[in-house]
Amino acid sequence: MMSGHPVAAQDGDMAEIDDAQLIERANDLFDPIPTEPPELDGNKVTPERVQLGRMLFFDPRLSASHAISCNSCHQMGLGGDDNQPTSIGHGWQRGPRNAPTVFNAVFNTAQFWDGRAEDLEQQAKGPVQAGVEMANTPARAVKTLKSMPGYVEAFGAAFPEEEDPVTFDNMAKALEAFQATLLTPNSPFDRYLKGETDALTAKQKQGLQEFMSTGCVGCHNGVNIGGQGYYPFGLIEKPGADVLPRDDRGRFQVTKTASDEYVFRAAPLRNIAITQPYFHSGKVWSLENAVALMGVSQLGQELSEDEIDRIVAFLQSVTGEQPRVEYPVLPESTSETPLPVEYEQEPSKR
Amino acid sequence: MMSGHPVAAQDGDMAEIDDAQLIERANDLFDPIPTEPPELDGNKVTPERVQLGRMLFFDPRLSASHAISCNSCHQMGLGGDDNQPTSIGHGWQRGPRNAPTVFNAVFNTAQFWDGRAEDLEQQAKGPVQAGVEMANTPARAVKTLKSMPGYVEAFGAAFPEEEDPVTFDNMAKALEAFQATLLTPNSPFDRYLKGETDALTAKQKQGLQEFMSTGCVGCHNGVNIGGQGYYPFGLIEKPGADVLPRDDRGRFQVTKTASDEYVFRAAPLRNIAITQPYFHSGKVWSLENAVALMGVSQLGQELSEDEIDRIVAFLQSVTGEQPRVEYPVLPESTSETPLPVEYEQEPSKR
Repeated sequence: MMSGHPVAAQDGDMAEIDDAQLIERANDLFDPIPTEPPELDGNKVTPERVQLGRMLFFDPRLSASHAISCNSCHQMGLGGDDNQPTSIGHGWQRGPRNAPTVFNAVFNTAQFWDGRAEDLEQQAKGPVQAGVEMANTPARAVKTLKSMPGYVEAFGAAFPEEEDPVTFDNMAKALEAFQATLLTPNSPFDRYLKGETDALTAKQKQGLQEFMSTGCVGCHNGVNIGGQGYYPFGLIEKPGADVLPRDDRGRFQVTKTASDEYVFRAAPLRNIAITQPYFHSGKVWSLENAVALMGVSQLGQELSEDEIDRIVAFLQSVTGEQPRVEYPVLPESTSETPLPVEYEQEPSKR
Repeated sequence: MMSGHPVAAQDGDMAEIDDAQLIERANDLFDPIPTEPPELDGNKVTPERVQLGRMLFFDPRLSASHAISCNSCHQMGLGGDDNQPTSIGHGWQRGPRNAPTVFNAVFNTAQFWDGRAEDLEQQAKGPVQAGVEMANTPARAVKTLKSMPGYVEAFGAAFPEEEDPVTFDNMAKALEAFQATLLTPNSPFDRYLKGETDALTAKQKQGLQEFMSTGCVGCHNGVNIGGQGYYPFGLIEKPGADVLPRDDRGRFQVTKTASDEYVFRAAPLRNIAITQPYFHSGKVWSLENAVALMGVSQLGQELSEDEIDRIVAFLQSVTGEQPRVEYPVLPESTSETPLPVEYEQEPSKR
């Protein structure tokens, strides 16, 4: 039987599990999510930057239409993504890839499915400009921000040593600082890693064992259970074109290197149970199906229903405490604020 | 000179104003926004209902696309509306009228520009179903809510005496309860009403006097400075078709009564300075222009630039403390949750 929910521990199997040993092995491969943001390269997570970043994150006036904010596709209430196959952007256009969660994203070694941004500061500049997302320009975004005394003051407080603090780069820095605070600590799995032996059910412990022994952990390890390296999607067997569309060649599009064809960053699996649908194409809605597909495509294994069930139970244990975010009161527009831009369909697409 | 910002009190004019008298007159016509929600007809503002309503308000899964929530058009950070001429809904369709603010909306005698919903409970059912807004059906919304244990529990807590609490009606009741808490008290004007004589600048006091003496107060009075009665837009002189499109006949569409042609509910003016653009058509971005247009169309008066400037200064004093809302962590979807629906353009519009 496949189940989407954790089931009670199967007491009969409890004897099989040596918690001390399992916790030790797991601690070699994983780390718990910290409760405090990490230090950032070239950026300081000050309260003023976080506060400014929170305002920017929720401000739809960073988009050409004034209708789309970061939170539109990375919703604070839905695990940090939008639970869409691919996101809806400017003019109701669909983006090419599934929106990844922003929660714990600061721990990924690179951002985007193809790793084309080295960190969240670089990443933040992408969607604001992407034609199918927020469709704005850096110049217009900066003009918008400079038009509002509330933002001028907030940038001044966040970057107190700069003469002209309202810049596109500083916008990205503030967004990075805010996102560095979006952590989901204290998942059952993390509590288990820290020695709380009854934080996981017996089934989840078995799932954890199998997650390590079948080889999932080869790509999905570290603090984010993934998000660290690049691997071909379809290492053993290429999935169908519905899940792996042949025109999206993944990291090849960044490196132009033949060996990077259909290579993607291993998905970070933190909060995976609440961030469906799965894979860069967003075509698989069930975590059971996603695990089964990974078994075949990456490990060359037809996992049994019971194995899938237990691995899914483990994956449900990596959902942490969701961040509590107060909705920011945004600065008032002024007569200098650029007006929203109407979506104009390209003539060729009419 | 026209200005969009409050200016310092003009000390030379201070002598002209008898605060005690002005406060007394103003208290005959207006009431301050209370800090606590009012009692509702047939609904109880319990913490459980407010909490459920807050979840529903932010949940995009109430829309067919799973991309639009109440907050998309009534944003907590933008004065309770979207600062758009008319809102962008399902499939990037534009709604027919400007989205009104939800802040203090509980004090309006009826909801929508044409008053077609008697209260926020009735109102809440509209946008969820409107084809150009959330484009959902009551049956699908209820199926969606029932698919998530988190919602079943929250509805049970909010409606503890009901056997089958997850209903479309109760969804609307919870949304009404949450919105009843979205109040903006303690504006400078309200503090003045309560006797704090230096809460308004001299210019704002003059603006208040003129707001009353020129006749604005005839339609814009009470706790919401409007939102109470129905009046023809263009009582004296019909505005141009850009501001008053001739195919939107206002309350006539509700009552089918000839005298209701181009009749609208007088806009509530609370927080008006931060909820541009103005009028049901959303075509006027500047508050100065809106006041000038009202003078001509409703009062038959060409207001001077100084008069407009002072009335605008007064209107800027009715922006209250914005509600502080914590973003809710939403219940997880399950395999029973209906998937998002793709927008299908009507063949005739392709």
